[in-house]
Amino acid sequence: MNIGVFDSGFGGLTVLRALLEQLPAANYTYLGDTARLPYGAKSQATVARYAVSSARFLVEEGAEYLVIACNTASALALDAIRDAVRVPVLGVIETGANAAFATTKSKDVLVIATAATVESHAYSGACAERGLRAYEKACPLLVPLVEEGWIDHPVTEEVLRIYLAELLTASAERNLDPDTLVLGCTHYPLLRANIERAVPASIRVIDSADVTAAQVASAIPHLKVEMWSTQNSGIQGSRLFYATDSVTKFCRLGAKFLGQRIDQVTLVDLGG
Amino acid sequence: MNIGVFDSGFGGLTVLRALLEQLPAANYTYLGDTARLPYGAKSQATVARYAVSSARFLVEEGAEYLVIACNTASALALDAIRDAVRVPVLGVIETGANAAFATTKSKDVLVIATAATVESHAYSGACAERGLRAYEKACPLLVPLVEEGWIDHPVTEEVLRIYLAELLTASAERNLDPDTLVLGCTHYPLLRANIERAVPASIRVIDSADVTAAQVASAIPHLKVEMWSTQNSGIQGSRLFYATDSVTKFCRLGAKFLGQRIDQVTLVDLGG
Repeated sequence: MNIGVFDSGFGGLTVLRALLEQLPAANYTYLGDTARLPYGAKSQATVARYAVSSARFLVEEGAEYLVIACNTASALALDAIRDAVRVPVLGVIETGANAAFATTKSKDVLVIATAATVESHAYSGACAERGLRAYEKACPLLVPLVEEGWIDHPVTEEVLRIYLAELLTASAERNLDPDTLVLGCTHYPLLRANIERAVPASIRVIDSADVTAAQVASAIPHLKVEMWSTQNSGIQGSRLFYATDSVTKFCRLGAKFLGQRIDQVTLVDLGG
Repeated sequence: MNIGVFDSGFGGLTVLRALLEQLPAANYTYLGDTARLPYGAKSQATVARYAVSSARFLVEEGAEYLVIACNTASALALDAIRDAVRVPVLGVIETGANAAFATTKSKDVLVIATAATVESHAYSGACAERGLRAYEKACPLLVPLVEEGWIDHPVTEEVLRIYLAELLTASAERNLDPDTLVLGCTHYPLLRANIERAVPASIRVIDSADVTAAQVASAIPHLKVEMWSTQNSGIQGSRLFYATDSVTKFCRLGAKFLGQRIDQVTLVDLGG
């Protein structure tokens, strides 16, 4: 079984990390569209064009199941990707909404994400389908702060304080009683501890990486069995990494998100 | 005379603004490659590919003279652009180094720019050719802060304080005695007042927009004559704007950089 994992850059490696823990026996092909990132401030048409070409590449490379690990691509391009390829496609908006549904008691949910994800209101829609109310806020500075490496940094603390205060004020004005905050961008799990410190203790912070991996596992039951046997035997599947820009940068920055070394990345040209 | 002005996005509009003041009679065609921005964290190969396709587009649209208003593209792709088109091409690294040469007395110059521009050491090279020593520092958070609109904001003041303190410390360790700071990214002029407050009064802050416009004017002498006659008559040339992503966003964000309304932008697909 070959699982293709797609992200605009490095953030999707947090989803791959969860997949490797839960399904180590599968073969993985990861693509980071680093030449065209970030997607988060671009239009629906452009994001869909980039995501479709990326998804097609993964299927041509043998992926039998696609995980769209990029929230922006999941929000803006999931239908376009499903129209373009003939394999099952799972997006992280859906799995994030599932995680929120499983967590919230008040049925009121907060979401922080990129500008493009928020403007699409994909999370609001997915939450509404599950009987939840969601309030979404764009936090455009968080991705650059993570990429600058300012994780435990006073500037990042202050930016989070400002964004989260605005989020909580706006949600209170709408008479919401949120108990759950969804990290709607795969860069944000690297700031999880900072975010948990910045919100009231009554609010649980969730990211979709673990629940995405669990949903893949349940969608492919035979793989789960295989997983247990290989976890015992220590055998693991292959991991192939592709990027559309500098492979040295991918190795260096990607390791932070994956939580382990990345030794080999292949450069691929998707046009542009 | 049709002058093509190219930038990865909106920043080059600060250069166009200076050109409109100094050469209002010329016709201008501006391209912002907004679908593929930012260039500042990408590799030389990718930036060159994007910049060459953009330059070719402007020449096909009738540009007889190209101003590469993007520091990253000027630093990484000027030779590739000159090889690809048959019109004169001016880059802002060269004009920025000229401005530094005209300003500095100590012959020691500081440069702040994107990561890609700094890693290319294009400013150091251009300064060395003029007998100047330059120390360059990447400031990756400044572009996102400008695009978030946090111009007069405590977080931006703090980020500048950190970056500029690191810059001054590193230049002192190298026994430099800088009296000039070059803004090596076209977003930074929007933070000029903040930057001037954050450095010692002995350091003059310069950006290449005015000197670039002056250099274009001197390269095209007949246009300068024409300029005076039309400034008197009030006649001005045409201004055409193209972008590779959302035209509504280009109008909204671009106006901040150009200092005037942008009413019409045409979407263009350069592939990718």
